[in-house]
Amino acid sequence: MPWGTKLHLTIFGESHGPAIGAVLEGLPAGEAIDIEQVLVQMARRAPGRDRSATPRKESDEPQILSGMLGSKTTGAPLCAVIANTNTHSADYDGLGTVPRPGHADYTAYLRYHGCSDVRGGGRFSGRLTAPLVFAGAVCRQILKRRGVTVGSHVLSVHSAADTPFDPVNVSAELLEALSQKYFPTVSPSAETAMRAEIESARMALDSVGGVVECAAVGLPGGFGGPLSEGVESSLSSLLFAVPACKGVEFGAGFGTTELFGSENNDPFYYDGAAVKTRTNNAGGILGGITTGMPLLFRAAFKPTPSIAREQDSVDLTAGTDTKLSVHGRHDPCIVPRAAVAVEAAASVALLDLLL
Amino acid sequence: MPWGTKLHLTIFGESHGPAIGAVLEGLPAGEAIDIEQVLVQMARRAPGRDRSATPRKESDEPQILSGMLGSKTTGAPLCAVIANTNTHSADYDGLGTVPRPGHADYTAYLRYHGCSDVRGGGRFSGRLTAPLVFAGAVCRQILKRRGVTVGSHVLSVHSAADTPFDPVNVSAELLEALSQKYFPTVSPSAETAMRAEIESARMALDSVGGVVECAAVGLPGGFGGPLSEGVESSLSSLLFAVPACKGVEFGAGFGTTELFGSENNDPFYYDGAAVKTRTNNAGGILGGITTGMPLLFRAAFKPTPSIAREQDSVDLTAGTDTKLSVHGRHDPCIVPRAAVAVEAAASVALLDLLL
Amino acid sequence: MPWGTKLHLTIFGESHGPAIGAVLEGLPAGEAIDIEQVLVQMARRAPGRDRSATPRKESDEPQILSGMLGSKTTGAPLCAVIANTNTHSADYDGLGTVPRPGHADYTAYLRYHGCSDVRGGGRFSGRLTAPLVFAGAVCRQILKRRGVTVGSHVLSVHSAADTPFDPVNVSAELLEALSQKYFPTVSPSAETAMRAEIESARMALDSVGGVVECAAVGLPGGFGGPLSEGVESSLSSLLFAVPACKGVEFGAGFGTTELFGSENNDPFYYDGAAVKTRTNNAGGILGGITTGMPLLFRAAFKPTPSIAREQDSVDLTAGTDTKLSVHGRHDPCIVPRAAVAVEAAASVALLDLLL
Amino acid sequence: MPWGTKLHLTIFGESHGPAIGAVLEGLPAGEAIDIEQVLVQMARRAPGRDRSATPRKESDEPQILSGMLGSKTTGAPLCAVIANTNTHSADYDGLGTVPRPGHADYTAYLRYHGCSDVRGGGRFSGRLTAPLVFAGAVCRQILKRRGVTVGSHVLSVHSAADTPFDPVNVSAELLEALSQKYFPTVSPSAETAMRAEIESARMALDSVGGVVECAAVGLPGGFGGPLSEGVESSLSSLLFAVPACKGVEFGAGFGTTELFGSENNDPFYYDGAAVKTRTNNAGGILGGITTGMPLLFRAAFKPTPSIAREQDSVDLTAGTDTKLSVHGRHDPCIVPRAAVAVEAAASVALLDLLL
Repeated sequence: MPWGTKLHLTIFGESHGPAIGAVLEGLPAGEAIDIEQVLVQMARRAPGRDRSATPRKESDEPQILSGMLGSKTTGAPLCAVIANTNTHSADYDGLGTVPRPGHADYTAYLRYHGCSDVRGGGRFSGRLTAPLVFAGAVCRQILKRRGVTVGSHVLSVHSAADTPFDPVNVSAELLEALSQKYFPTVSPSAETAMRAEIESARMALDSVGGVVECAAVGLPGGFGGPLSEGVESSLSSLLFAVPACKGVEFGAGFGTTELFGSENNDPFYYDGAAVKTRTNNAGGILGGITTGMPLLFRAAFKPTPSIAREQDSVDLTAGTDTKLSVHGRHDPCIVPRAAVAVEAAASVALLDLLL
Repeated sequence: MPWGTKLHLTIFGESHGPAIGAVLEGLPAGEAIDIEQVLVQMARRAPGRDRSATPRKESDEPQILSGMLGSKTTGAPLCAVIANTNTHSADYDGLGTVPRPGHADYTAYLRYHGCSDVRGGGRFSGRLTAPLVFAGAVCRQILKRRGVTVGSHVLSVHSAADTPFDPVNVSAELLEALSQKYFPTVSPSAETAMRAEIESARMALDSVGGVVECAAVGLPGGFGGPLSEGVESSLSSLLFAVPACKGVEFGAGFGTTELFGSENNDPFYYDGAAVKTRTNNAGGILGGITTGMPLLFRAAFKPTPSIAREQDSVDLTAGTDTKLSVHGRHDPCIVPRAAVAVEAAASVALLDLLL
Repeated sequence: MPWGTKLHLTIFGESHGPAIGAVLEGLPAGEAIDIEQVLVQMARRAPGRDRSATPRKESDEPQILSGMLGSKTTGAPLCAVIANTNTHSADYDGLGTVPRPGHADYTAYLRYHGCSDVRGGGRFSGRLTAPLVFAGAVCRQILKRRGVTVGSHVLSVHSAADTPFDPVNVSAELLEALSQKYFPTVSPSAETAMRAEIESARMALDSVGGVVECAAVGLPGGFGGPLSEGVESSLSSLLFAVPACKGVEFGAGFGTTELFGSENNDPFYYDGAAVKTRTNNAGGILGGITTGMPLLFRAAFKPTPSIAREQDSVDLTAGTDTKLSVHGRHDPCIVPRAAVAVEAAASVALLDLLL
Repeated sequence: MPWGTKLHLTIFGESHGPAIGAVLEGLPAGEAIDIEQVLVQMARRAPGRDRSATPRKESDEPQILSGMLGSKTTGAPLCAVIANTNTHSADYDGLGTVPRPGHADYTAYLRYHGCSDVRGGGRFSGRLTAPLVFAGAVCRQILKRRGVTVGSHVLSVHSAADTPFDPVNVSAELLEALSQKYFPTVSPSAETAMRAEIESARMALDSVGGVVECAAVGLPGGFGGPLSEGVESSLSSLLFAVPACKGVEFGAGFGTTELFGSENNDPFYYDGAAVKTRTNNAGGILGGITTGMPLLFRAAFKPTPSIAREQDSVDLTAGTDTKLSVHGRHDPCIVPRAAVAVEAAASVALLDLLL
């Protein structure tokens, strides 16, 4: 079922089928879209950039089929298609009957009665974040024209950590700069430490996960609503659509449970004519509605399930326990690429909120 | 906008209006509903039970207006109304112009241009979880008839912690027992410690938050779907609808980011004819689809924002900074009551999934 | 499933249950609602006014439970409940097993496996238009504040016909006047002729149907969209929700199929700075989008299926053919009351369009 | 916004953009789809077949991008793309400022602030029915496997009429045969008369409309629901999405308003163990729910608005009245091709109902 209330996002495609793509309905007409900036985001997500990611290389160039005339949106559904060109299906032979631990192989088998396209993970492949990133790259530009800047960084990879965002003063400039980077961190040394963790896992035929922290500044107060109309409900439903996401928290999140109310409540004050809060444990949301302070959230990504080590699994055809060694091309850590998908999901969800 | 895809849940009402209630569309016809068991859940959520909660006492008796004939559902929308009887609106005088820190007063003012019903928190009151608990209590019974048991416990209150659920072996009996308790903990001493934390906060005119851990057992594998059709997307969108929820994680959640893939992947094995996993870091969900293992998640609740201590705020009419002392009746800790709402949200979302 | 895209209308209740009602989500905050004018519409729909309608008398007074504070909307879901007070369930004994021809008894039996509340037609009763009329009466006032007037008349009852609306020049004054009448016709003699048809059918223990013609003026151009986003798709989906509606046509409707393109096309011209059309066969809609000319459509209502004459039916328990004589209180013609429901449906659908 | 409740149909594309297409979500996995039969339906809709239609020739070959593996559905969204190859955009120069009467040019200009792609009618072109026909052709095969056959005929073109379907005894064989024809009529002489009407209009630089009658047999009773869940609400919302559709009626439709209740009610009887009705004025639907009798409805299509005759219009740039002569390639009658779209809409809506 398509995602969204005013925007409607449909993502189609399977990893080794002819193509994947997205349809985004509900965009305003007449919005200029800079395709170069869209390609920047696509490239950030694409595999094959360096040793921290899978060596599968694909241009991931989106072909726009509808919804744009020249450089502007027409108001019709925007459809973009990304061809699947570099597929090594033989790598995945036999996966249909021996499910990879931590992957969707087994559950897809149950859900689709053995009829789904399992090659390359099919619809469950991280590759399906490419259409999401396309949609997000478009929405991001429309948001920016309305004064909203979205950006994220890798807050942690395994035990290596970056400096968290300042919840009150995180700037559009920082977010903008991060949103152009392949491995976005606030502190350069954090990137070095994280790359070391990843390389170490790779050498051990293993994988690592991490946390993405994302912020949006310039968001006006008063958007969202109570109960299931809340910003958190909307954002989380799209964030959990990013494969491998296992947790989402807003503002001080799980950390609020260790604070007293007197510590956690963000005191209001007037900054000129604007109402602001001195702290921002709320992450820019009270009662499901934006406060006008920076929107702040974190998403947890588990370690890539595809690892080269031998693992215990079952043979669904034989009905017996068995061992599995996964070959093929896999990221030892998807967190830097997941950050791009997180920004995309946030951009789509926030534009849906503002329209 | 109503919540759900096959079930549609509409919650209406404001805290000090004539009544609050819920309409639940899409229930199967002919399902027997034990009203006594519904009242057990309503009572667990209702305030005024002991010193850990607000002294406001209300019967919270739902009056069913439609959708049931005798003790069975008719297939028509189930509507229940709960009268607001014990309202002290005078306690809230002046809140319209001086927003309480950490509350939705300010954002509701922006969102509804000063026209919302602010008395008692209006639509943002925790009281609005009563209709959710009603709906959940109905869905829970239908789930149980299909072999699914939902239950939760208070995993932590401030620094006091309960024993976590065993992700693999958590039993229907334990969940069933917890789902009848006012202060559900696995370990009796945890309840004692938590009550001490709450009482201590109350004495300090302060408040505390905590984490609710919830599980469902008996859920068949193969329900849910990839991307935004995932179980996590659906569940989180309803969990974040519970006021004060700031984080949601599934399985090992944020903890997976500190594990290696070889530690986090749950190995498959055959237990007789059934495929199971030896660990359950996935929390019963892979690729957005249930595995058949226990579904497990945690939700973080911030400390109650209404505290008796004087706080910094602003006077929206005067346009100046000011001090605020909140009177009225408030919980120093809503976590035990939030657990009931969490179970309700899970019950509604899981029945929506299975239908 | 609730109806609507920006407004969400949920109608609950069964004819002989405790109450029926509606929840309308998505209304703007701060809209003044004149309850007296709502009651005027409720009274127009209510039974028992004269011999043309069923003698069942009910106050049909809606009790507003939420969404209003004083005389204004709060932005929260508006819920109104109408008690079922004057129910003669004994009149309907035995209907569960011998379905009335032309009624939903048989199909409801199939759909709900014999578990639906069949008393008084249950959820299929024309009484369920009362909540729709409530919702429409609220939306109508908000539309009027935006310059849009909705009104209808009984275009025909069996062979008696009223003067059709002038598609180009139908006025807000005429629509306003009609929308206050119990038996709305443009020509007073048409009402007389129609009442004679109805009385004649009643004396013959029979019933008659007719056509309602409805218009909206003041609607700005540019609302709606292509394909399934069209005004016709939206309106028809709510019009066919009115029981006994068997056909809907816009503008010249089925009549356009007997015109040449050169006759049917409405020529554009400038009336001052405004673009208008000299004719209005389009009924104010081109490509699913409003033109700014009067919106015009007709809805066909079949003769009331409940007639006192003996009819052929089946006994679902015995599995045999049988005869059925329906007692109870029924309208020989529901068209004048259906007009009120049609206006209500149009008001809800048009406000959904404009928001 | 995508159409549907269990199926979700998204149609994208503009007439002269790179491509048009459809995404259909919610199909069951493992359904065999015969592409040859899909192409038969595409060919029936495609232009350029004979003088009754526009000479624009296009292969209209759908390329399936996702959702199928070999000849079977995978359960993932089915996406098909149809390239726009034979576009003469120069024919449409100037349409942006002088709207064609009866067309969406003017309303699209309002709706999209002059930013929509107007070439070839853009998103409002009849060409956008090609993706609908694709989706319908897929759904039709799944319906047939479940025993449901859908077919239609041209009931009238201007003053020439075909024999109506027998509402009680219309057969699957007849519907099947009609659903393979380019100009589907029950009576061969009707086709001759209709073609003469069309040719006569074409010679007069004019156009004609007509009525499509559609039926579905084999549909089980008990599907649908009361109020806006009714089969009529669902079907009409998709039928009115077909460009040029101005009216929809079910069963005896507007004709029921000239019958007495005793004539219109369809008496029940037992035919062996099956409950049937002796007449079928209800068109197979009572209370919004299928009866198990043939589903029957009619859709009215206005004459093609694009005619070669000079017409009155306005110049939106100059702000003056002007004359317009439309060149380009247009059907003098789209009714035979509309029949294919009607069958497709019915197939999609009925499969949505049955899933």
